[in-house]
Amino acid sequence: MSKRVRIGVIGTGTLGMHHCHTLALLTPQAELAAVADNRDEAARAAAALGSETSIATDYRALLEDRSIQAVIITTPNDTHAQLVREAAEADKDIYCEKPLALDMADADSALEAVAGNSVKLQIGFQRRFDPAYREARSALLAGDLGSIELIVGTTRDPAPPPPAYLERSGGFFVDTAIHDYDAVRFLTGLEVTDVFATAATLILEDPRERPMRDTSVTSLRLENGALATITNSRRSNYGYDVRIEVAGSKGKLALGEERRTAVRTYTEAGASHDFVGSYWELFQTAYVAELRHFVQCVAEDKGPEVTGEDGRKALQIALLAERSSQEGRSLSMDQLR
Amino acid sequence: MSKRVRIGVIGTGTLGMHHCHTLALLTPQAELAAVADNRDEAARAAAALGSETSIATDYRALLEDRSIQAVIITTPNDTHAQLVREAAEADKDIYCEKPLALDMADADSALEAVAGNSVKLQIGFQRRFDPAYREARSALLAGDLGSIELIVGTTRDPAPPPPAYLERSGGFFVDTAIHDYDAVRFLTGLEVTDVFATAATLILEDPRERPMRDTSVTSLRLENGALATITNSRRSNYGYDVRIEVAGSKGKLALGEERRTAVRTYTEAGASHDFVGSYWELFQTAYVAELRHFVQCVAEDKGPEVTGEDGRKALQIALLAERSSQEGRSLSMDQLR
Amino acid sequence: MSKRVRIGVIGTGTLGMHHCHTLALLTPQAELAAVADNRDEAARAAAALGSETSIATDYRALLEDRSIQAVIITTPNDTHAQLVREAAEADKDIYCEKPLALDMADADSALEAVAGNSVKLQIGFQRRFDPAYREARSALLAGDLGSIELIVGTTRDPAPPPPAYLERSGGFFVDTAIHDYDAVRFLTGLEVTDVFATAATLILEDPRERPMRDTSVTSLRLENGALATITNSRRSNYGYDVRIEVAGSKGKLALGEERRTAVRTYTEAGASHDFVGSYWELFQTAYVAELRHFVQCVAEDKGPEVTGEDGRKALQIALLAERSSQEGRSLSMDQLR
Amino acid sequence: MSKRVRIGVIGTGTLGMHHCHTLALLTPQAELAAVADNRDEAARAAAALGSETSIATDYRALLEDRSIQAVIITTPNDTHAQLVREAAEADKDIYCEKPLALDMADADSALEAVAGNSVKLQIGFQRRFDPAYREARSALLAGDLGSIELIVGTTRDPAPPPPAYLERSGGFFVDTAIHDYDAVRFLTGLEVTDVFATAATLILEDPRERPMRDTSVTSLRLENGALATITNSRRSNYGYDVRIEVAGSKGKLALGEERRTAVRTYTEAGASHDFVGSYWELFQTAYVAELRHFVQCVAEDKGPEVTGEDGRKALQIALLAERSSQEGRSLSMDQLR
Repeated sequence: MSKRVRIGVIGTGTLGMHHCHTLALLTPQAELAAVADNRDEAARAAAALGSETSIATDYRALLEDRSIQAVIITTPNDTHAQLVREAAEADKDIYCEKPLALDMADADSALEAVAGNSVKLQIGFQRRFDPAYREARSALLAGDLGSIELIVGTTRDPAPPPPAYLERSGGFFVDTAIHDYDAVRFLTGLEVTDVFATAATLILEDPRERPMRDTSVTSLRLENGALATITNSRRSNYGYDVRIEVAGSKGKLALGEERRTAVRTYTEAGASHDFVGSYWELFQTAYVAELRHFVQCVAEDKGPEVTGEDGRKALQIALLAERSSQEGRSLSMDQLR
Repeated sequence: MSKRVRIGVIGTGTLGMHHCHTLALLTPQAELAAVADNRDEAARAAAALGSETSIATDYRALLEDRSIQAVIITTPNDTHAQLVREAAEADKDIYCEKPLALDMADADSALEAVAGNSVKLQIGFQRRFDPAYREARSALLAGDLGSIELIVGTTRDPAPPPPAYLERSGGFFVDTAIHDYDAVRFLTGLEVTDVFATAATLILEDPRERPMRDTSVTSLRLENGALATITNSRRSNYGYDVRIEVAGSKGKLALGEERRTAVRTYTEAGASHDFVGSYWELFQTAYVAELRHFVQCVAEDKGPEVTGEDGRKALQIALLAERSSQEGRSLSMDQLR
Repeated sequence: MSKRVRIGVIGTGTLGMHHCHTLALLTPQAELAAVADNRDEAARAAAALGSETSIATDYRALLEDRSIQAVIITTPNDTHAQLVREAAEADKDIYCEKPLALDMADADSALEAVAGNSVKLQIGFQRRFDPAYREARSALLAGDLGSIELIVGTTRDPAPPPPAYLERSGGFFVDTAIHDYDAVRFLTGLEVTDVFATAATLILEDPRERPMRDTSVTSLRLENGALATITNSRRSNYGYDVRIEVAGSKGKLALGEERRTAVRTYTEAGASHDFVGSYWELFQTAYVAELRHFVQCVAEDKGPEVTGEDGRKALQIALLAERSSQEGRSLSMDQLR
Repeated sequence: MSKRVRIGVIGTGTLGMHHCHTLALLTPQAELAAVADNRDEAARAAAALGSETSIATDYRALLEDRSIQAVIITTPNDTHAQLVREAAEADKDIYCEKPLALDMADADSALEAVAGNSVKLQIGFQRRFDPAYREARSALLAGDLGSIELIVGTTRDPAPPPPAYLERSGGFFVDTAIHDYDAVRFLTGLEVTDVFATAATLILEDPRERPMRDTSVTSLRLENGALATITNSRRSNYGYDVRIEVAGSKGKLALGEERRTAVRTYTEAGASHDFVGSYWELFQTAYVAELRHFVQCVAEDKGPEVTGEDGRKALQIALLAERSSQEGRSLSMDQLR
């Protein structure tokens, strides 16, 4: 086996921890070389998954370690752009969770640093590595369903994240709907030209959170004239509900359903099956595959499939959706650059 | 058995013919007394379903027949309001297909004639008589799914209707999406407050038809703050596709699917099942039930479940959707009265 | 419309009542001329569905009425053969519920009377008139699934019938499984050659009923070498469960499912949909279609699709299953003639 | 991390290769220490998955290596019992693929060697480690479906294995249906008391294979009086089809379906979804989990969940099914000891 890629993970919250596990135990090509988190305990727990994994409470120590080739950024959303810049300047290849940034200026300066230092950048749109999404994209790009006409997608989280997460999240469109916007681009290979969104606060109860949105509908127009609608909610008592349906001139393709295993029960009380508990469960395979892809790109000096530009485009749609929902009118992509 | 209600059918196209069949053969309480159609042959064919059914090529002859108690109006959309007015003035109880009218002024004058002459009026929103819709409404109004938050609905016709139909249809929103707008009101018991729509022409090819829309997305806001999105298309190679999903604070309810019978085949070529061929097939039971309801209301002097006001409200939403799709902005219900 | 067929219904229990309703209200070609039931009240209720329907407490009065052309026999199972004989001798065309008889000798003498008097006989295997079964048979006989290899079928009743019904039913195989045996013959067009069955009493609790079976598995071998297994139960807390799956050299066909309408709900308590409440609900269309077919055969002097021989064959399988379950060995069809 | 368990794999055909991959790359607690196969090339390919993995063409060399703690036996079925005996005598813990043996005498002598040498033995019934099967067993043992009454199970392979495999397989019941027999025991916690089977050769075409069966139906009676039917086929053009349904006094549980991913397409040609390609695909998670369980049992000196007795019981049912299919009668478990 070739030499392993030494990787550092910055931010060891739930997602960072998950990635540490993948790197240490499920990615033979990678070595979990270092973890950084300003919460010492979290960092220690993550490091325990590897062997000889160094620990830092300041991520700058990790970036200064020249033996580390690449970093995984899984910190709060409002730190992504700054960390991408610093990691690029420290000459690390970068895997960064979505969103790339919270505004376009920040996104652009991060992408400039990446380009200027010739490092790789992969954005964490894990759905692109899910077997079903890949199968769907293949069928759609092959023209099996004809020319794309109408898309209906949704992502509904079981419950809102904690307030501490919410306040640094960049808002509902930038934090959640962004996955669906990217899915539309990935599945169809088409760019969005117009955005309209409407949103509501129906779930969040804390007065400090009330300005935030938790329910939304986004209408998109694509470059070929096709229409899409994306619905999002921070509540779903029946598990993590992620589905998308793409209709074309020859038929439609539907992806996703409300079930986890193939067990169903039928009793006097009704028919029942289990639900998808979380994105962990639904995208288990995809989370591992995206990291393996990143490690392989670093090892073999190839460009990742999910680019910084993909991160920028999805962010642009999300920011326009946010603005549209406030202004009550449709906005074209060139109204935000 | 009590005395049968003598009914006249005005307009014996496909739908009128279907109603004649229902009245003559499946509604013991009704008597198909007369049919009127300016196409003599169509009128004759319809009359053949009854016994002693009189035939008119001018509907006015039918309206003048005092022995006729009630009329069914299944003429082109652009004649509905005028016919409702005349029938009301002739003192007939009226079942009228949707849409009630093509603009609000016409709708209002029709409703005034109905009120002024104290006749009954039922609008042909047949979904309200489908067992699944009724079951769904009961569950939703009983609060089984909690407070309504997010609705996703669709109606997709297998293919566009003929040009002659299209040009008198009132447009895509008024002709097709109106069924879904009414379904939202029926299922939730909530009124719409805001409308945004976007539309495209992706299917119609005749240059004369190109100004018409055949694909659309409508976003609605309801009086309780809930959001809805309705998608419509004039193309569906996989049969008549009508579904709606209503999510609330306690879970979601989904209605409709792409299947007709419970037969599935699995071969090397793939898994397969049959499709719903048309609205006839999907709403077979509902079409019979709505007419029986109307006949019963006439016989027992009760008000129909689907009122003129229901017809007016759905029309108002459809007209706002049309305008919103042209202006690119969200409109509130009070912007059209 | 041609002259209507005057029909008498013998036995106005639940099923007889249902047939009276179909004849009086849903079959324009038929006239419900007479009903006979030794329970006077039941007969009166049935007659009320028609107009000028005569009432008899002794079925012989009905058979003596020369104006009656055909009879429907829906009396207890142990009277079928005798009534078929008498009706044939009275020169009536006959629709008789399954089973044709409770033993082969009785079946044969009934069929002889039918043949001897040249009357028509249709057996009440209503599944043969269900749209899904017909669609399935067409696909299978057309060879879409290749040569038949393996069949898995089931019928599960929500709950056992009342003791009074059970004691005259002829036993579980003759009363219930017989529908599945006929379905195998109908769907595949193949004859059964060997029968093995095993049975248990797991549901019936009354000591007088305990000798009867309520749960069974029947293995069949067909003339082309294919194998089938049929399971039956008198208990199904999740509604009337009737499904069959036929696998051939090119794939399989599955028919039936546990759902009634296309409404599903998803809540914290689980996913749910409604169930098929009873055979009335599942075979609503089929029950009407089979009677209309019979009436049409009488009116047009054609032979019914479901013949006395079909009734005899299914009975033979059922009786062999009963015997096999007692002897613990496989029996060939020629071991009972 | 504690010291890794050094494991040797005997037999590096498809399944052995799969296990080598699991041990080398997906089971951190294990070390792929040695592989043995009389086909040198296969052994080399398997060894390449590990690092410092020794290679033997004679499995006895592997058994003599004292540094090896445990072995995986994935050789042809007719060698299992002999290898278990030898491995036990060499003091190795043993994971052995099903079937444990091809007759009861061999099974018993293998189990005696295991007991006499106090080594561990796990049988390769991987379904017991599938999340859906575990969820189902929990629900059934918890009584969620009431007392067990009726079971319908099936396993259908896409195509027959090659002749070389078939002739050493022990026959259709012992090779294939044995998985379903074990599933019945696992899911219900109940023992089988009576066996009836019928079988046919409908698929195999080579005259030398014709004495073998490729299609079968097995009826089982369980100790509580419940009935089961198991169907098996060596042909399934629509993918690997494994399903089981367990009905009890409170309802039923269904496990398995014909789909792989949650992608469906709907076109003019019909509705479609992908199929499960093979047992690899369906039981991917289970195959890894069973090996990890075995390695953990060895490392922590615990008894495996799937015991030699489980292997013996399933074999006994399979042998009785074989005999019953020849004798045409039901056999009780005590007719083979």
